[in-house]
Amino acid sequence: MNVSVLGCGRWGTFIAWYVNKAGHDVTLWGRQGSKNLQVLMDSRKNDYLTLPDEIELSHSLENAVTSAEVIIISISAQQLRSFAKQLSQLNEIEGKTFILCMKGLEADSGKRLTQVFSEELGKSTNVAVWVGPGHVQDFVNHIPNCMVISSENIEITKKIVQAFNSDLIRFYYGQDLIGNEIGAATKNVMGIAAGMLDGLNYSSLKGSLMARGTREISRLVRAMGGNDLTIYGLSHLGDYEATLFSLHSHNRKFGQMFVQGEDFGKLAEGVSTVKALKELSAQYHVELPISDAIYEILFENKDAKKTLEDLILRPVKFEF
Amino acid sequence: MNVSVLGCGRWGTFIAWYVNKAGHDVTLWGRQGSKNLQVLMDSRKNDYLTLPDEIELSHSLENAVTSAEVIIISISAQQLRSFAKQLSQLNEIEGKTFILCMKGLEADSGKRLTQVFSEELGKSTNVAVWVGPGHVQDFVNHIPNCMVISSENIEITKKIVQAFNSDLIRFYYGQDLIGNEIGAATKNVMGIAAGMLDGLNYSSLKGSLMARGTREISRLVRAMGGNDLTIYGLSHLGDYEATLFSLHSHNRKFGQMFVQGEDFGKLAEGVSTVKALKELSAQYHVELPISDAIYEILFENKDAKKTLEDLILRPVKFEF
Repeated sequence: MNVSVLGCGRWGTFIAWYVNKAGHDVTLWGRQGSKNLQVLMDSRKNDYLTLPDEIELSHSLENAVTSAEVIIISISAQQLRSFAKQLSQLNEIEGKTFILCMKGLEADSGKRLTQVFSEELGKSTNVAVWVGPGHVQDFVNHIPNCMVISSENIEITKKIVQAFNSDLIRFYYGQDLIGNEIGAATKNVMGIAAGMLDGLNYSSLKGSLMARGTREISRLVRAMGGNDLTIYGLSHLGDYEATLFSLHSHNRKFGQMFVQGEDFGKLAEGVSTVKALKELSAQYHVELPISDAIYEILFENKDAKKTLEDLILRPVKFEF
Repeated sequence: MNVSVLGCGRWGTFIAWYVNKAGHDVTLWGRQGSKNLQVLMDSRKNDYLTLPDEIELSHSLENAVTSAEVIIISISAQQLRSFAKQLSQLNEIEGKTFILCMKGLEADSGKRLTQVFSEELGKSTNVAVWVGPGHVQDFVNHIPNCMVISSENIEITKKIVQAFNSDLIRFYYGQDLIGNEIGAATKNVMGIAAGMLDGLNYSSLKGSLMARGTREISRLVRAMGGNDLTIYGLSHLGDYEATLFSLHSHNRKFGQMFVQGEDFGKLAEGVSTVKALKELSAQYHVELPISDAIYEILFENKDAKKTLEDLILRPVKFEF
């Protein structure tokens, strides 16, 4: 099958490498001026892996999209709307299958990424998400993991799983797109919270954070019409190791450096998700105390130590 | 209030220290010949803390029990039945409140510890459990955590929480004794599994383990008549940080050393729990694939790497 991967950051480049290994013809696209693509064109390498010669590298969005049956998108989540507008200008996108590999929500609207995508491209394309745990660093060292493909159409989901399943990534069929998208995005917020706890020498409170965090997001998913058990599956709880505990996790690291007064150098995706959750909390009338606390620390200069102590050690007597 | 703590290992000694700090008169009991008690008598210290002089150290079980209104038990879970038989011989135990601080199940019968206790002592005593996350090493360094008190009588639960709550340990009322006891015991099995993954360089599969492990035990709790959400609270998921990720965790360490062919020096409590789960799986007709896999590795010489790969990477297509 012809597959194009749009976006050549750490994760997009890994996906191109992986999909090629799974037996497909792959084009990896980067925008004009992309440093990542230039490095790949010059050396066919990045910090994590070497791309085989048969993967085509391209600056032409039109070629990448028109030549492929399945198009995988791995760009910054907050840029998805403008990028989707660009895609909608192209010919021949009808009937194609797009897979979104980002974990985020639109910051201003709280919308899920498949919603954003469908609003811009209409309903004539198929859209799915590819979420769940896994570090690029591990995969390239042959350490396998389980991930999830989810869409509103089980036939599309099955087709994608069949095409991309391997010993390295064992895919499950997602059965709840709302839950899988909200779960995948919000685990980054818990990652920031975990990093803050690490930075405050409160790592042992990450247990309470996991119990409370899953419950909080589960309530939101239910209010949004999803299945409240989805959060306890791979897309959210199953991604906690990679996000709340791993040294590789950007969101955890961001939270840790934030409370230590250091500069992470860029915003972690969970920062935008915290904004989106403020929106969703209001829209669906669901209290999100952990997300609110992180919002107050990040955007309202509340003291992290006191805010997290009040949050996790506050006198709530009953657990549920 | 007069409180006695029976058992002077790491956790029992900490509890005596903690309950004294919470304002109670405390007796700490150890059996005749206990090395731990001898060290405490000689130096009033162990590897973790120093006991204040007002804590009484005693070899007399009768004195410890008769002098106290609340009696906290922290011994090996597998010795609880014989110990409870011994207690049942004593006078004046009626109406007293016993709190079990161990996390385990009776290996041969699969029975919960409060069941074992009540079978031996009858119904004339109150029995509760004290479970949830927290490392002695952290508490003595003033790092707080949240824990759970659970019993079949909410008034007893409230009385215990009121007596022992502090800034260091924030107690929640457990609302599901079955779920809290099964959850607390079985997190040790997940701890062994996590350690095995660590030892096999598969730490990144701990995310999948968490998602699958909680679900497996949740199904068991429901079959046993408990609430299937309890597992996602403090007693089980909330204890995963301390058990699946912490270097302090005995069960995790045991699993890691086991697959590395090293000797941990003793059996971790989760080993007995795996046996108990075999029993419960049969009694309640609930499949427990993770627990079964650990059983096969520990007791049937199955290869750990292959067994865990088959378990976690097996082609189960739907998550739920």
